[in-house]
Amino acid sequence: MEKITIVKVGGAVVEDEAQLTQLLKDFAAIEGKKVLVHGGGRRATKVAAALGIESKMVNGRRITDADMLEVVTMVYGGLVNKNLVARLQAAGVNALGLTGADIDVIRSHKRPIKDGIDFGFVGDVEKANGQILHTLINAGITPVMAPLTHDGQGHILNTNADTIAGETAKALAPYYDVTLIYCFEKKGVLSNPDDDNSVISEITREDFERYKADGTVAGGMIPKLDNAFDAIDTGVKRVIITLATAIDGQHGTVIR
Amino acid sequence: MEKITIVKVGGAVVEDEAQLTQLLKDFAAIEGKKVLVHGGGRRATKVAAALGIESKMVNGRRITDADMLEVVTMVYGGLVNKNLVARLQAAGVNALGLTGADIDVIRSHKRPIKDGIDFGFVGDVEKANGQILHTLINAGITPVMAPLTHDGQGHILNTNADTIAGETAKALAPYYDVTLIYCFEKKGVLSNPDDDNSVISEITREDFERYKADGTVAGGMIPKLDNAFDAIDTGVKRVIITLATAIDGQHGTVIR
Repeated sequence: MEKITIVKVGGAVVEDEAQLTQLLKDFAAIEGKKVLVHGGGRRATKVAAALGIESKMVNGRRITDADMLEVVTMVYGGLVNKNLVARLQAAGVNALGLTGADIDVIRSHKRPIKDGIDFGFVGDVEKANGQILHTLINAGITPVMAPLTHDGQGHILNTNADTIAGETAKALAPYYDVTLIYCFEKKGVLSNPDDDNSVISEITREDFERYKADGTVAGGMIPKLDNAFDAIDTGVKRVIITLATAIDGQHGTVIR
Repeated sequence: MEKITIVKVGGAVVEDEAQLTQLLKDFAAIEGKKVLVHGGGRRATKVAAALGIESKMVNGRRITDADMLEVVTMVYGGLVNKNLVARLQAAGVNALGLTGADIDVIRSHKRPIKDGIDFGFVGDVEKANGQILHTLINAGITPVMAPLTHDGQGHILNTNADTIAGETAKALAPYYDVTLIYCFEKKGVLSNPDDDNSVISEITREDFERYKADGTVAGGMIPKLDNAFDAIDTGVKRVIITLATAIDGQHGTVIR
């Protein structure tokens, strides 16, 4: 099976010019077929603040009211996505910016209120359309995916970029040998949180359960690894958690 | 040759809920292949104002400084484009939002300073890629085009939506029997500006020259008709100037 690399990069990287320049260079250098999935939360928070809209977060997740939905649609779908596309084009990558609404790539439904928390216009993914992505990718196109989906009823919904990356990887698994790279602010999953060089090179599911039990893995890394194992279970070949400056597939923590 | 209809609709329509609902319904009802090109200037002006950015216009054209470029990239490429795409998807149209940067569809260069006027980050179109559009359209996809282009050096540029529509029509002329519909706030070109029902049903180039000479056609209609005749000269079959509520090809002024 032909290889494909899906790189998910967060807002902190795409909003820092030096890091972004490096990332685009490294991404352009990845051989073969590829997909870029981006965040943009910090920029959305800034634009919202400039518009006098308060950013409300619960457990690190954004509450997306109607005003905030407009902001993320502007920032993720417009500002961040189109600048990435233009810069990748300049780097020789035939990029195509996509939200989930475009050619119905990712359909979602509005998250129901749970435990009293209403996340607002947030979409939980129902399905990603691997076939149409496969057709585009095989035509030499590199999708650049914004963290927005749609409900099929005419509404854009805000969706976590890690989830977009995971769902895209799973949807492409029937067509390609998929490597999913999650860029992270550390070199990988650390065996000692105080030692940035204590990268665990490979994690099995048993390791993960043990690390969770003994507290080595905690906080935001748990849902990230849950996503990773979920992707592996659905046919993704390998998931890598690594620095945005080390996306060559040779660094970070590998989940198989 | 297979028929295709390209509809250009301005900001006033896409920003008015009642008009937009009608337009989307009418656009979805157009049989066969189609493309939607949209503006969004009024919304950009509003968002800019909310961000404390002043909109500067010269001869009805926006001066696009760095801050305003961010605003139009957000509003045209994100807010307006993605909502149109989501709503067309709900109406059964397999819409794909595009700026000129996406799959390098429309390349432009920054407009040079002329007569002392620096329009800023405004792109004059070099070429529209009819072949890639043809490939997408033949795959059942309906492009929804924002008035943004790119210079191939990594920069988004602001480009007039009428121009995007005209260049797209010309680029598709080798592949299709193209009808280009410019939505307008009047029923068409009027023989008496004071009588909204005095629609001229068809204009030849000789008519146009005569109307210009006698003042029947004036102001913003002149560049619109210049664009229309330019499109006809490049192989577009017919250009129609009509109300946004009358895009069925049976109304308005026809230029052949």
